Amino acid sequence: MRADGFAFAIDARDGAARAGRLATPHGVVPTPAFMPVATLGAVRGLEPATLAAIGAKILLANTYHLHERPGEEVVAALGGLHGFTGWRGPWLTDSGGYQVTSLGDRAVVGEDGVAFASTRDGAKRLLTPERAVAILEALGADVAMALDECRPTAWLGAATDAESQRRTEATLARTLRWAARCQAARRRKDRALFGIVQGGVFADLRRRSARDTAALAFDGYAHGGLGLGEAAAQRADLVAAAQECLPPAAPRYLMGIGRPADLLDAIEVGVDLFDCVLPTRNGRHGVLYTSEGMLRIRNARFRTDPAPVDPACDCPTCAAHGRAYLRHLLQENEILGMRLASIHNLRFYLRLLEDARTAIAAGSFAAFARDARRRLTGDS
Amino acid sequence: MRADGFAFAIDARDGAARAGRLATPHGVVPTPAFMPVATLGAVRGLEPATLAAIGAKILLANTYHLHERPGEEVVAALGGLHGFTGWRGPWLTDSGGYQVTSLGDRAVVGEDGVAFASTRDGAKRLLTPERAVAILEALGADVAMALDECRPTAWLGAATDAESQRRTEATLARTLRWAARCQAARRRKDRALFGIVQGGVFADLRRRSARDTAALAFDGYAHGGLGLGEAAAQRADLVAAAQECLPPAAPRYLMGIGRPADLLDAIEVGVDLFDCVLPTRNGRHGVLYTSEGMLRIRNARFRTDPAPVDPACDCPTCAAHGRAYLRHLLQENEILGMRLASIHNLRFYLRLLEDARTAIAAGSFAAFARDARRRLTGDS
Repeated sequence: MRADGFAFAIDARDGAARAGRLATPHGVVPTPAFMPVATLGAVRGLEPATLAAIGAKILLANTYHLHERPGEEVVAALGGLHGFTGWRGPWLTDSGGYQVTSLGDRAVVGEDGVAFASTRDGAKRLLTPERAVAILEALGADVAMALDECRPTAWLGAATDAESQRRTEATLARTLRWAARCQAARRRKDRALFGIVQGGVFADLRRRSARDTAALAFDGYAHGGLGLGEAAAQRADLVAAAQECLPPAAPRYLMGIGRPADLLDAIEVGVDLFDCVLPTRNGRHGVLYTSEGMLRIRNARFRTDPAPVDPACDCPTCAAHGRAYLRHLLQENEILGMRLASIHNLRFYLRLLEDARTAIAAGSFAAFARDARRRLTGDS
Repeated sequence: MRADGFAFAIDARDGAARAGRLATPHGVVPTPAFMPVATLGAVRGLEPATLAAIGAKILLANTYHLHERPGEEVVAALGGLHGFTGWRGPWLTDSGGYQVTSLGDRAVVGEDGVAFASTRDGAKRLLTPERAVAILEALGADVAMALDECRPTAWLGAATDAESQRRTEATLARTLRWAARCQAARRRKDRALFGIVQGGVFADLRRRSARDTAALAFDGYAHGGLGLGEAAAQRADLVAAAQECLPPAAPRYLMGIGRPADLLDAIEVGVDLFDCVLPTRNGRHGVLYTSEGMLRIRNARFRTDPAPVDPACDCPTCAAHGRAYLRHLLQENEILGMRLASIHNLRFYLRLLEDARTAIAAGSFAAFARDARRRLTGDS
């Protein structure tokens, strides 16, 4: 099944990189695109108007967290994520699989699904692929992710490479069976569902996972289970390997990655969508991105520095406030400081991808990426 | 000494209530006016643009807190509070006296000033009237308060009324000596200084304090040491008593008070300026003001309520979000919830005073206040 009201158009290619437009029932997302993370239906401290003002086009919410609090029935009663939160643009929800399996001892994965103890009331719950789709459709995001088995420890904790590969294959096979069940469980034709490619650090497994997932005809595809210790160069190779086996016309999403340079690497091999908590989390901790590298704003040398965080930045924080004030607010754990830093860092990410899109359209992505990487290595 | 660049014009009177304009070097403040509290140079979670958008005209910062962190020398190096924070409108700073004396055992009050241990580095510091004025002038607020001895326990903790009165007289007399020293210590003619009337719950002492403070020719006057347990009706009487002895053309400020009904009471007897942490603190705790009374948004009955906090409200929170979402955010201690609730509550206070001003100009303040009080007693 594929959803109605969705389309992915590729406007330009530059090597493997592509500039596209993902049309959804709630608006068009130019790609490559970065999705700010709104775990509980809110990017910490930033309301929809602020997010729109800095160029966000699509937000990501966490299914597991919203299922726990306030519950998908509450979100559904308010008209889904769009009505509940007031962000009327496109939403994407993750699968819940990663969060649930990362509960550790509090979750048990079986063929039917993931059994876990709710943090809301301690009650035992079973998250099956069918239940996951029902939750996702109640939340009503434009794009949802199929339930996957995401077991980072399957390959990191194994005694031998062979053992690690066997475990990864089992995870991948189960994810595929769950993906088929998710597809079969869909009731809403107005919401897209993406399949998730697994396969750990094994290129062959990633290719196989991509091929088999693509055979299920999802609306788009994601690379899962990465960013867990593999080298950046290896990750780009794994993503590229999987994409050989994905339909070229479908949108591709690299889940949870990462640093600005990681995004450039992935765009280079043809990834379209990204999310990561780094810009907001780093911002709250006073680590700020600039066109000349990272800036640790809590450093004492910014105590009386009147300059904006990045003189080349067009965000509202840089337009109105200097480093000394931002440093003071973050030193005092003043929530305005977290807000202003998040605004700045998100704008940095959003603009990086806007600029990448422009470079792809101009056929100059390689030079753009080289220059951006050189600047990003600066560190103050 | 009186400051240059200041003027207080009274546009309309309605009984003792007055509608005025306080001109400062950084803009004109229509009165009666409510000053949002920006303790450390920031209203929690709200940047200057947001504050301006909801009608704030003047902010209050805490001298003691800014002296401790980041230090007035930092603020001064950035161009004072205006340059440091980016709020380019008028600022008012409190005297620091209340905060210092509320340190309890960590502060010792003598004739020369208040000795206290800094929370910044544990070092002993002495806050004299002269030092207070130097700090205030370094912070650079348009209006500063003279250092006062604010001893709430002087009259609340006394064994007898006579003993309480003796202690209050001593406090009042010292405040007056400090006020004279503050006046003598002023160096900047471009910044206003207000004297503070003390006198506890004794109308005679408040009258005497007002008369003697007025004789020192400040730019304006404040009522201090109230809101500490006295009944609302008694407070209005005490304020009225003191104002008989203050120059009618000078602006009058009731420090740290209070609930919306308290503001109406004080406007009725001719007070022009107010500050209070209640709207922001209550907002962060989910207690929201509406035209029909208080609303405790964490109540379970708002779980799926799509209505804005107050359908009659014109704030950005009510324009974009419903009760269910605000409840969810505050339940989760999401800082966006604190921001949105603070925006709503501050707008409620600011609009209440805008409406009071309109009513005074129309000669209908008594009816306005009666109607507002009736609505405020609603509670959901």
